[in-house]
Amino acid sequence: MACSVEIICVGNELLIGKTLNTNAQWLADQITRLGGKVTRITEVRDDVQEIASVVKEAVKRKVDFVITSGGLGPTFDDKTLQGISRATGKKLKLNQHALRLVRNRYKEMSVPNRLRLTKPRVKMAILPKGSSPISNPVGTAPGVLVEYGSARLISLPGVPKELKAIFDRSVAEMIREKSGELAFYESSMIVRGIVESALSPLIDKVMRRNPEVYVKSHPKGGEGRTGALIELHFSLTEKNRGKARQRVIKATIDMVRMLGKTRLRRR
Amino acid sequence: MACSVEIICVGNELLIGKTLNTNAQWLADQITRLGGKVTRITEVRDDVQEIASVVKEAVKRKVDFVITSGGLGPTFDDKTLQGISRATGKKLKLNQHALRLVRNRYKEMSVPNRLRLTKPRVKMAILPKGSSPISNPVGTAPGVLVEYGSARLISLPGVPKELKAIFDRSVAEMIREKSGELAFYESSMIVRGIVESALSPLIDKVMRRNPEVYVKSHPKGGEGRTGALIELHFSLTEKNRGKARQRVIKATIDMVRMLGKTRLRRR
Repeated sequence: MACSVEIICVGNELLIGKTLNTNAQWLADQITRLGGKVTRITEVRDDVQEIASVVKEAVKRKVDFVITSGGLGPTFDDKTLQGISRATGKKLKLNQHALRLVRNRYKEMSVPNRLRLTKPRVKMAILPKGSSPISNPVGTAPGVLVEYGSARLISLPGVPKELKAIFDRSVAEMIREKSGELAFYESSMIVRGIVESALSPLIDKVMRRNPEVYVKSHPKGGEGRTGALIELHFSLTEKNRGKARQRVIKATIDMVRMLGKTRLRRR
Repeated sequence: MACSVEIICVGNELLIGKTLNTNAQWLADQITRLGGKVTRITEVRDDVQEIASVVKEAVKRKVDFVITSGGLGPTFDDKTLQGISRATGKKLKLNQHALRLVRNRYKEMSVPNRLRLTKPRVKMAILPKGSSPISNPVGTAPGVLVEYGSARLISLPGVPKELKAIFDRSVAEMIREKSGELAFYESSMIVRGIVESALSPLIDKVMRRNPEVYVKSHPKGGEGRTGALIELHFSLTEKNRGKARQRVIKATIDMVRMLGKTRLRRR
């Protein structure tokens, strides 16, 4: 089994470069560790049509999950659910379960008018028809799950603490289950004194000999500085931890042997 | 005039959550300051078909610039130009100007075999037909400019230092020119003791009174903690600095007045 995921991050602050998108990295890291494969990450503005387009495109690409971050809050510019509604044709309506979640969160808090369900508060419970709200243990806007065709669309708030709490508590298990027994394994080594263009044919050879292992070089400081470091990253997605370890070790040893045969720069 | 830009970041390391995408934020920040509007940011794997699809989609959305980062280096997994070639139908071929740039860079460097144009080094000069290479002052892989329909496709290396150097030296001016006299202005204020759901109607009112100014709230710590801070961000894209300042100041004063009238939490 395999589990493909697209991540969609909503918010003008990302597109004007005000905010660094740590949510996308955190989600991609978690999903990869759970055995899922993130195939695309898209950042769009707070614009209903843009959100709807990118959700529709993701669904067309037949992914198992579309996870959105941001745009669930009480203000006018929180438009993610409008976008999902437009993409799926599921009309927005008040969800009683979500409303209870929102009400309960305000009851627990010590804010003024905490018992008043004002329009902005009720907004957080207006979901596409047929959605399931997902309880938010650390904030007020619930997450939202919408099943659409064979895809599950999951919307999380953009506040990192809330996104992480909901993901850990309610989403991780869905990804793990869909991934089956697959898991992601990785390992790194740092090489020095060789430029990336000289490393390139060695990587090709190692990958030909170890077709299950993906080897990627990450220059740390740019090609050309011989003092510069290059990180070699070995990774694979595998069912069996023992076999994964074996394969990565073999590829690493192949690389070390080939590097040994290459004439490095004399000091 | 206006100038729309899509950013496409290429690299498995982004999709497995190994690398935080600081390039996208840096580019978006620069482009915004130059008066351009970043409409979408997409991250894709080192996969020719995926790169080609997202380039084609961006061009279809009629943007003025598509800027890619990553995938220009000497190794097998540097596939951005193959993707652009497939998207545009412009065949890959050795570009003599690019080859000179690559050769000159190696000449300047103190690496072993620095004068040998090995296959991985030549690879960096194989560009879609009709491209113009863009000199890379701090690395070996040149940037690449391809004109396609009314869009300019610009490819930059993924190493942040190289991406920034090429952008500053050769790309910024193109964006500024296309943007005309437009520039982006912004201002922030921090409010405390009010939750986002209570702030929401005030933002609506301020935006109705100041339709040119975009007001966005950024909770710093999540709705519900009354001690939490909320950043209010005012922004607009304007020709005239004086008018921009005036408009932001007016919107800010409107907000301060309304906040003054709202009963804040008693301590």
